[in-house]
Amino acid sequence: MTVETLSEHPCFGGTQGFYRVTSPACGGPMRFAVYRPPQASVGPVPVLYFLAGLTCSEETATIKAGMQRIASELGLMLVMPDTSPRDTGIDGATGDWEFGEAAGFYLDATQAPWSSRFRMETHVVHELPAIIAANFPADIERSGIMGHSMGGHGALTLALRHPGKYRSLSAFAPIMAPSRVPWGEKAFSRYLGEDREAWRRHDACELVRQRKFGGTILIDQGLADKFLASQLKPELFEDACEESGQALAVRRHEGYDHGYYFIASFAEDHLRHHTGELA
Amino acid sequence: MTVETLSEHPCFGGTQGFYRVTSPACGGPMRFAVYRPPQASVGPVPVLYFLAGLTCSEETATIKAGMQRIASELGLMLVMPDTSPRDTGIDGATGDWEFGEAAGFYLDATQAPWSSRFRMETHVVHELPAIIAANFPADIERSGIMGHSMGGHGALTLALRHPGKYRSLSAFAPIMAPSRVPWGEKAFSRYLGEDREAWRRHDACELVRQRKFGGTILIDQGLADKFLASQLKPELFEDACEESGQALAVRRHEGYDHGYYFIASFAEDHLRHHTGELA
Repeated sequence: MTVETLSEHPCFGGTQGFYRVTSPACGGPMRFAVYRPPQASVGPVPVLYFLAGLTCSEETATIKAGMQRIASELGLMLVMPDTSPRDTGIDGATGDWEFGEAAGFYLDATQAPWSSRFRMETHVVHELPAIIAANFPADIERSGIMGHSMGGHGALTLALRHPGKYRSLSAFAPIMAPSRVPWGEKAFSRYLGEDREAWRRHDACELVRQRKFGGTILIDQGLADKFLASQLKPELFEDACEESGQALAVRRHEGYDHGYYFIASFAEDHLRHHTGELA
Repeated sequence: MTVETLSEHPCFGGTQGFYRVTSPACGGPMRFAVYRPPQASVGPVPVLYFLAGLTCSEETATIKAGMQRIASELGLMLVMPDTSPRDTGIDGATGDWEFGEAAGFYLDATQAPWSSRFRMETHVVHELPAIIAANFPADIERSGIMGHSMGGHGALTLALRHPGKYRSLSAFAPIMAPSRVPWGEKAFSRYLGEDREAWRRHDACELVRQRKFGGTILIDQGLADKFLASQLKPELFEDACEESGQALAVRRHEGYDHGYYFIASFAEDHLRHHTGELA
């Protein structure tokens, strides 16, 4: 798979780059961002995937989260995928910020017309790591994953669905029980159909009951997040983790909201958490 | 002057807010951003103004520069003005990224039709400090100013034109000799007219020859900046500072470009410079 460089920018002694590949999984071009820390010029470094939320792209966290500074210090490569295929031309794929383009929900759709293009799980879990391993100085065996909101759902479910693929896991304000909240119900019913058994295989609460993640899951949640009660529901994931004995640290932050000023404020703790787990 | 709060977000223990006032100088609404560090809840803190560049707004640096983390540690209030009045309805004020809206050049226009609205010098130097002093826990006597590109020109010229107003000064990739580069020639000829004597009063090279700034001016410049040779010309400002005995530290950075990945990489040094000068 040929990697096309769109732009590269020196940043904190490393390089923030933007790239494009033709993705067989998603049937078209997919953009992604990579931050190479200065340590990557000496040898392979561990990799941390950051999955963004609804309406976002591979650029959002690179601009807003301030993570390059910390990654530069810790020697972490940051990989930010886009949140869906783009310019699909599929009727209904644009115009609704909760579904379709920029709202891929990090799963492989099984229902037409989405199943031809919306296959973000394969793209993130299989395609991207192969691309990173082949083209960047990455120690791909030491990979962690994190995400925000819809991307937090992605991080939790992909890490739980693919044991051994990711050795560290964290999230900011993730959608934790997608089968039981409006964002998830809308996306799952269209991408996966009406069979709720299929939904369970992409619901972090259901997955963690079946198999634990081999490390502590770190979650930060703002208490002034307007989506907290309706879409995120951390208490349901806490119950599920307690049932299954999953190690979990949920930190609640008075006054913080759902945005990137919140993420930037606590990102350093997450990157240090990943570095500890990936050591 | 009533300050309307547009939004406020907790950030690194402080608050990132966006506000709007009706500006007599600019004849209409003006937006600005303020970061209040946690120390501001105890007592007044020093103030650092950040002036943004062409195409930018009060939001650009708040999103992209990562300065809140450092301001939170150092106890600095950050004030980001917009780069011009907006929605002026003046023919020719939009559609050209180098002139008009989002390109106010931090001066008071003297030529019609611009002189009715484009009065950013008065807005930044007089209106905003009065608003900040009256509405925020600011120690306004301890104020510094910095900026990027067009905003670097703004920081240099406003600090040199208003002795005693700012006690610390720095810039990223500033326009240093606007009378002699295309960006400045276009803006000055329209805002100030064809009399080049008037231009000299807004040209950092000319101003520093007349009166020194009472502290070291810190400038960071990327060597892969595509505007370096045509629009920025640090060597002209270095010559002028040497002539007048102005203390100046220009740091040149191999490979870095004109964007915010560059600014973010070195912003901490600037904020520490200001904190030192404002102590």
